[in-house]
Amino acid sequence: MSTSNAGGPLTPERILEAADETLRRFGPAKTTVVDVARALGVSHGSVYRHFPTKADLRDAVVDRWLQRMHPSLAAVADGEGAAAERVRLVLWTLAETKWTQAREDPEFFTAFAELAEDARTPVVAHVDFVVVQLTKVIAEGVARGEIASADPKTTALAVFDATAKFHNPAARSEWVRPAIDEAFANVWRLLRDGLLPRGVRGVGESG
Amino acid sequence: MSTSNAGGPLTPERILEAADETLRRFGPAKTTVVDVARALGVSHGSVYRHFPTKADLRDAVVDRWLQRMHPSLAAVADGEGAAAERVRLVLWTLAETKWTQAREDPEFFTAFAELAEDARTPVVAHVDFVVVQLTKVIAEGVARGEIASADPKTTALAVFDATAKFHNPAARSEWVRPAIDEAFANVWRLLRDGLLPRGVRGVGESG
Repeated sequence: MSTSNAGGPLTPERILEAADETLRRFGPAKTTVVDVARALGVSHGSVYRHFPTKADLRDAVVDRWLQRMHPSLAAVADGEGAAAERVRLVLWTLAETKWTQAREDPEFFTAFAELAEDARTPVVAHVDFVVVQLTKVIAEGVARGEIASADPKTTALAVFDATAKFHNPAARSEWVRPAIDEAFANVWRLLRDGLLPRGVRGVGESG
Repeated sequence: MSTSNAGGPLTPERILEAADETLRRFGPAKTTVVDVARALGVSHGSVYRHFPTKADLRDAVVDRWLQRMHPSLAAVADGEGAAAERVRLVLWTLAETKWTQAREDPEFFTAFAELAEDARTPVVAHVDFVVVQLTKVIAEGVARGEIASADPKTTALAVFDATAKFHNPAARSEWVRPAIDEAFANVWRLLRDGLLPRGVRGVGESG
């Protein structure tokens, strides 16, 4: 049950790995710093040295999980291709990564989702990161005449909010539905049509 | 503590009113049929006669609360004015009614939201009702040339899903943020632009 201390010095990374494992096993309500220390074969004082409070440890677990997605999101945002398609890919990658985790490792994902509800700081940092990626792509699309937006950051927040059902862990009970990717595609089609430049607008511009 | 039995015969409506009050006081985890019967001054057998299982009673509480919104949603859908604006009003009424309840009666709303997570049947019926209203307005908008949609029902589901953050009780922790109505407005602007007929489209139609 306990990971040997032979893994080298007690780094934050090793503590967080043990915390993931402990959370997966006991759930967030029952996991204590003592459990994490026990799994590492160290005193709880050594864990507290890196994470002074239980909340610090929990925030760090959430932060680590969210940050792990960031390189692939940035890669997609910085990729080639039409701006609107890259906006779609950022949102899709965000959703699909979470769906996969929720399906393949449901114990951890449930624990993570519960922790994330209280972990304002890392969640806000993650949302900011995603919105920065989307803003960058939308601003590029505007510069190239591919996207219409008076304010790329506001538009980025709007597409993020409009797809919340697909990437917010609070909505995870919906992800098991078989038609969830079709639902994403239908929402996306509407958003994409909203992003396209008006050009000469036809009928219906009644406001 | 107990409502007198002098209120007339024990109707389902009286039981559901007592159930609302009991849930508000004890929360869903601790509320039992016995508590509801006690509040009414009747035997729990008389409650079971109307609601054979605890799940039946819980579903009925959720159903009653959701159905209470339906007349105002239908009124807005059947109103005058541009179709897109009526789509907005249906979604706005749905969101705003829930925000108000969550703010003014947080104990009940929290209890309701927790019950709703397990109450598939009434929630599905409610979503169906809302989607039917939206489909009706969108189909009318298509007929009048005000809205572009190859399939009004799919579009109705897409606008419903795209605004989930604002009306799904699972996202209620977001509703306390001061900018939530601005976030709704920004999402709506994008959806409205997506709903408008393409007419002659300008640049950017690369997808």
